[in-house]
Amino acid sequence: MPSSPQQIAQLRDQFIAQLRATFTDKEPRGLYAPIDYILDLGGKRIRPVVALLAAQMFGDDDLSKSMPVALAVEVFHNFTLLHDDIMDDSPLRRGQTTVHEKWDINTGILSGDLMLIQAYQYLCNCPNKTALPDLLSTFNRVATGVCEGQQYDVDFEVRDDVTIGEYLKMIELKTAVLLGGALEMGALAAGANQEDADHLYAFGRLTGLAFQLQDDLLDTYGDSASTGKLQGNDIIRNKKTFLFLKAIELLAPEGREELNGWFSSSPADPAKKVSRVTELMTSVGIPEAVAKLRDEFQAEAYAHLDAAGGAPAVKVVLRDLTESLLQRIS
Amino acid sequence: MPSSPQQIAQLRDQFIAQLRATFTDKEPRGLYAPIDYILDLGGKRIRPVVALLAAQMFGDDDLSKSMPVALAVEVFHNFTLLHDDIMDDSPLRRGQTTVHEKWDINTGILSGDLMLIQAYQYLCNCPNKTALPDLLSTFNRVATGVCEGQQYDVDFEVRDDVTIGEYLKMIELKTAVLLGGALEMGALAAGANQEDADHLYAFGRLTGLAFQLQDDLLDTYGDSASTGKLQGNDIIRNKKTFLFLKAIELLAPEGREELNGWFSSSPADPAKKVSRVTELMTSVGIPEAVAKLRDEFQAEAYAHLDAAGGAPAVKVVLRDLTESLLQRIS
Repeated sequence: MPSSPQQIAQLRDQFIAQLRATFTDKEPRGLYAPIDYILDLGGKRIRPVVALLAAQMFGDDDLSKSMPVALAVEVFHNFTLLHDDIMDDSPLRRGQTTVHEKWDINTGILSGDLMLIQAYQYLCNCPNKTALPDLLSTFNRVATGVCEGQQYDVDFEVRDDVTIGEYLKMIELKTAVLLGGALEMGALAAGANQEDADHLYAFGRLTGLAFQLQDDLLDTYGDSASTGKLQGNDIIRNKKTFLFLKAIELLAPEGREELNGWFSSSPADPAKKVSRVTELMTSVGIPEAVAKLRDEFQAEAYAHLDAAGGAPAVKVVLRDLTESLLQRIS
Repeated sequence: MPSSPQQIAQLRDQFIAQLRATFTDKEPRGLYAPIDYILDLGGKRIRPVVALLAAQMFGDDDLSKSMPVALAVEVFHNFTLLHDDIMDDSPLRRGQTTVHEKWDINTGILSGDLMLIQAYQYLCNCPNKTALPDLLSTFNRVATGVCEGQQYDVDFEVRDDVTIGEYLKMIELKTAVLLGGALEMGALAAGANQEDADHLYAFGRLTGLAFQLQDDLLDTYGDSASTGKLQGNDIIRNKKTFLFLKAIELLAPEGREELNGWFSSSPADPAKKVSRVTELMTSVGIPEAVAKLRDEFQAEAYAHLDAAGGAPAVKVVLRDLTESLLQRIS
């Protein structure tokens, strides 16, 4: 029996081989080349891998039923990255030039549009035709949620009255529902019943929330050498994450005023801002508060994984993958 | 028995009522409000009306089977308009401010993305579930073609060696396949067999080509009072339509050089350019050449309509609608 990391690496390799097999020399190149480019930039391929694992829980050992779902979620995810990079005017994605920088904005819009269409096309390729209406219904719900989450994220940038509840709802929509959807659709494609698929959706949604909190925590408190990201980046960019919102809630009026002041400024040398904001957050126990909520989400997530039917051996792999992702970024 | 214009007006009204019933007060408003806005700007609603007529040919008298298709094609069409307006930086659409001008580019991108998702969602609402795989396969094919056509259109702007064949392929993809797809999907949703649906697709595709040629013809030779458009607009914008490409083919070297010269210039007062280019085109029989090709496409289109099964009375309405659209713009 191969270990969990071996099984996961093997699934990832199988997926990447299938993904590369979709690369095309079709015309017009200006439309198709950017799609292959962004899909080949790399990434952890978490969503397709968990979709395949969810399917294996329900007997899709050779992945023939769920590979189209894996392609659909990965192409959809990269479509959102492509359009988000335009909206955020980001020059880099995974250390490489973004599509709209390498080509232009119009190319980015149009190639992204086609990727959304292709995601549906892959989903329609699922051989389990009786599952198709449920697969589409899940995909439509998830894709709609992701757009709503992105819009809330944009809206929140110019609002100063965002509540913690609103922030959690935003990250749920923007990132967590797609992880849940990947698991739900993988299970459905393999023939799981809706109840089991719902448990896997909940497992993915709650795990996605835990991941995002962990990400936010490490952005401020992580070791930038091991995370590979600039420490305090969210603070520098005045990003109102859970850490900020919770600190505002917990600080006394004086500290609250100081934190709000820092978050209205963008000093050329941000070192002092980062260290002082971190101090303020630490003074009211933010690291502990984030860790507590993260662990609550993750515990609830595992309860859903336990409640789902399916092969226990594959559940172990899913759990090991989740832990390693939380470790890797902690 | 109501006349064709009465039947068409009634279908259009029924469709608009259904379309407006989809308008929503859902949050976030920044995402949903632009969608209702662009869908309410008006337009002839040709694609949904022909989808409903195609369904009526095959017995969907109360439109319950085909209304979701009509919504899907109209929302998809408006999604393409929204993103095209961003790419062309157009300030106006149907005489009103475009979405990216009224809101901003990011809103235009994201609301457009959601409209594409909604189009799939409407299609999935078709009550005829056995037709769903075929409906989705048609929609995926058509939507992919529309993106390809848009990319060719962009590519051709900076190429000076576009052939007539390439131009016709571009307008087929960019505009004609969606008209064909609306008819094909309307028929499929009503339970037509694929052979009949294919004939309707061909009828729509060829009619779309005839419409585009007629549009191009009237842009140069139409009466701007009756078309409502600036005469010679394509000439002013150096747009390489069928008229230009055919004139280049037919002119002697001297005239060809002059025409190419005009199409490399953008004079502040374009009156002389428009009149001289028109003269050059007329001198080699362009109006007759365009009319001939248009009529060939339309004759072939009607042959497919005749060959399709379905209620002859509804075919008459489809034919009357086609004629009135060719008249209205002639």
